[in-house]
Formats: sequence, structure tokens, C-alpha cells
Amino acid sequence: MATRPLILISNDDGVQAQGIGVLTRLMTLLGDVYVVAPDSARSGASCAITPIIPVRLKQIQSRGPQIFSCTGTPVDCVKLALEKVVPRQPDLVVSGINHGDNASVSLHYSGTVGVILEACMKGVPAIAFSLRTRQQRCDFSPYEDTILEVARYVLENGLPQDVCLNVNFPQVERLAGVRVCRQARGNWHQEWLETDERGAYCLTGNFENLEPEADDTDYWALDHDMAAITPMQLDMTYYPQIDVLKTLQK
Amino acid sequence: MATRPLILISNDDGVQAQGIGVLTRLMTLLGDVYVVAPDSARSGASCAITPIIPVRLKQIQSRGPQIFSCTGTPVDCVKLALEKVVPRQPDLVVSGINHGDNASVSLHYSGTVGVILEACMKGVPAIAFSLRTRQQRCDFSPYEDTILEVARYVLENGLPQDVCLNVNFPQVERLAGVRVCRQARGNWHQEWLETDERGAYCLTGNFENLEPEADDTDYWALDHDMAAITPMQLDMTYYPQIDVLKTLQK
Repeated sequence: MATRPLILISNDDGVQAQGIGVLTRLMTLLGDVYVVAPDSARSGASCAITPIIPVRLKQIQSRGPQIFSCTGTPVDCVKLALEKVVPRQPDLVVSGINHGDNASVSLHYSGTVGVILEACMKGVPAIAFSLRTRQQRCDFSPYEDTILEVARYVLENGLPQDVCLNVNFPQVERLAGVRVCRQARGNWHQEWLETDERGAYCLTGNFENLEPEADDTDYWALDHDMAAITPMQLDMTYYPQIDVLKTLQK
Repeated sequence: MATRPLILISNDDGVQAQGIGVLTRLMTLLGDVYVVAPDSARSGASCAITPIIPVRLKQIQSRGPQIFSCTGTPVDCVKLALEKVVPRQPDLVVSGINHGDNASVSLHYSGTVGVILEACMKGVPAIAFSLRTRQQRCDFSPYEDTILEVARYVLENGLPQDVCLNVNFPQVERLAGVRVCRQARGNWHQEWLETDERGAYCLTGNFENLEPEADDTDYWALDHDMAAITPMQLDMTYYPQIDVLKTLQK
């Protein structure tokens, strides 16, 4: 019998979130599962790491999927899992299912996406799953087939070096389709709500899709009730500017 | 008389760090300066934001450069500064000078780089400056001319939409040159030091340049005593994979 794939799962909503529970159940259909996730919500953690302060790891389930909670960030979870928890390099890392979308520039703030960038740096194919919702309890059943299909695709075909997948779902009863997309240009504005205390502000904000007419973006797909699959790369270099800037060389 | 440029400064080492003091002194040569920076070190904060908890802003200097300390992350500082502090959209945002380099994949963890990605999203030209050092007190004088030159260049020429600059310096008495670079492929390994307590680990690690022979990377420039200027983009889409993945479309 062939070895079952080893799959590592993390998220930024915390190990108790509904979304990671659904993802864990689905991934056990495809392989042997380890979960290493933050002990509480770390929304907006991006690729943050924890310097200086010790990070604590605690096993909370040892039958079926091995589940660990961690006091660190989502990226800490991946780093710890790969070095201290899993018996070998996983075949796949999946992240989510995040409660809230990570499309357009919002991916820069996302701990869910931080998980897959870290896995990608370590050479493990990785997929982030996020749902456009503001609810803590959701019906994830409309997305289960697509999640399994994308995960199976990556297990079978791999991904190019330094590339990972960012998958976003709209909140619908039935997906209108699945699109492979690019990241939309976007911006958040009116981001601060004044509190009663002078000089204290709460983060909020309205998102604006800066290219609403473009039909090849992740945001457009979500707006049209379709799942958006966006291939992402670790390399953030903007190559066309290298020659332009050479006037600064010495 | 023409209006002096408005320059916003932030960092991730905190408002009291030596590097931001040097940068503030240099930028006052070029324009009117506002500093909005974290009240203490936020190393490894990446593009993290602070949801739910209120973020507090406090003015600590009102003569000469206006200086504010903030309880939030580096990205929170930029968001707050742009919406609540500066009198108009700045002409330039600068970040640093970070104590520690942010070359290769380390830029993903960097709050210093988080600052410029946020400014870039908001349409403000932005430059991050970092020094490869482990010292809290450094001699920044070998880099002052290059910092001024790069800042002047961006004030005069701007940058393309959604593009910012990541500048790294080696710790040397005299720079061997200035190179315009791409981001090196790299990886951190052996990242966790076990503490006395079972299940508690401290983040450390060794960096490996995965393409040490390539002479066009940021890491190569630093290794050869040269400053590295790397143009970065907000768009993380890996375009070549879009067509490949279309088998997943529905």
C-alpha cells in the first residue's frame, strides 16, 4: 500500500475555529493530518513572527488527526510544526478556512496567507482557503468539493518552486463557478473609528476594488459568486524598474 | 517659495530607536517631517494590523519634526498617520533605518517593509532602509549620502504605481558600491532553540542564500559590501501559472 500523503494544517482564526475543523475533516479524506494552529484568534497577523518571547506548543488531540495549539503567530506555527512536530516534510500545507476573504491587497495583512508563504519558503506546496463572510458560524458545505479538488490537484501535480495558491470563496448557497485569477488592485479607506478616549482608535474600514471592470481578478470572481484561485509568488521584485533605477548605481 | 515636501517616517524598532532618529535628522534636510512610530520594538511585525483592540496615539514632540508614538503595529502607524495625523497626503514615506537587514525572503517578516507596502497601497512613494547589523547602537554615517540620494531621486521622479523600494546596507566603514537588485531566493533553518520548559521554544535561525553565485541579488550585494536597492511590487500574482491552472476552472 502506498504511503498516505502527510498534510499539515494551520490558520489564523485559532485552533478552535469552525473553519479549521471543516478543513481538518476534509483533509483526513486525503491523507494523514497534523494540525498546528494558534491557541486563539490571530487575525491580521500577516507573516509576523515572535522574536525573543518563548513560543509554547501543546498537544490537544492525539487520536485521529494530531492537533497542537501554539501561543505564537500563524507563521510561528508553521515553523514549529515543520521543525518540531511532523515526522517528515509534509506533502501539502493547507490554511484556513478563514472567516473573511483574503482577496486583493488584503492578502498582505492575512495570517492565513502568512501560513502558505512560510510553507512555500520551506519548499512545501501550500494552499490558503478563505470565505468572504463576517460570521463566526458558517455553512462551508458549498465549498467542500472545490477544496478537495484543488487539494487533490496540488498533491498530484505539485506547484512551481516558490509559488503557492490563495483560494477565496464568496458566501453563496451554490458556487456560480471557479476562476483562476490575478490579485485585484485595491485599497482600504476610512479605516479608523474614534473611541470615547481621546487619541484611541479602532481599526475598521471600507474596501475599494480599484479596477471593478476587470473580469480577471480575484475580487471580480467573488463579486460574481465564483471561487477565486490566485497563484502567488514569494518573489516581490518589480523587475521592470531594475533598469530604470540603474542611474542610482555606483 | 515652493512648498517643502511632506515626509512621513515610521519603523518597527520603535520611536526611540537610534535608526529612526538618524532618518528623521536626514529627512529634515529634504522636507517637513512627521514621525509616527510604534511605542516599543515591533520586530518581525510584517504587515500585521491590530483588529478589535483600540490603538492609542500620543504626540511626544511638537517642535521641529512632529513626533507621535503609537501602541499599534508599523502598518497601524502608517494607516493612523495618513488618516489622522498629517495635514495632507505625504510626498514620501520612509521607514527605518532598521537594525537588521531585510533582504531576500526576510522582507516578508519585516515591519520596516510593512510600512512601505502600506504607504504604497495608499499611493504614496515609499522607501525602506535597513542595516545588516545585530547591534542596537551603530554608526550610520557611511550610509547617509546614499539615503539622501535615493530619497531625493524618489521625490523628484516618483515611482510606478504599486511599486516601492527596499534598500539594505552592509555594516561597513565605506560602501563598496550601490546596486539595483532583485530579491534573492533564501531560507531560514534550525529556527528553534529549546528552553528549559518542555514545549517552549525561542525563535532563532540561520539564513541560507539559495543562489549564492547569482550576482544580481540583494543578498549578493550585501555580501560584497554594497548597498542593495530592490524595487518591490504589491501584486504577488504569479502570472505564468494562471494558464496552467485553468484545468481547475468551471
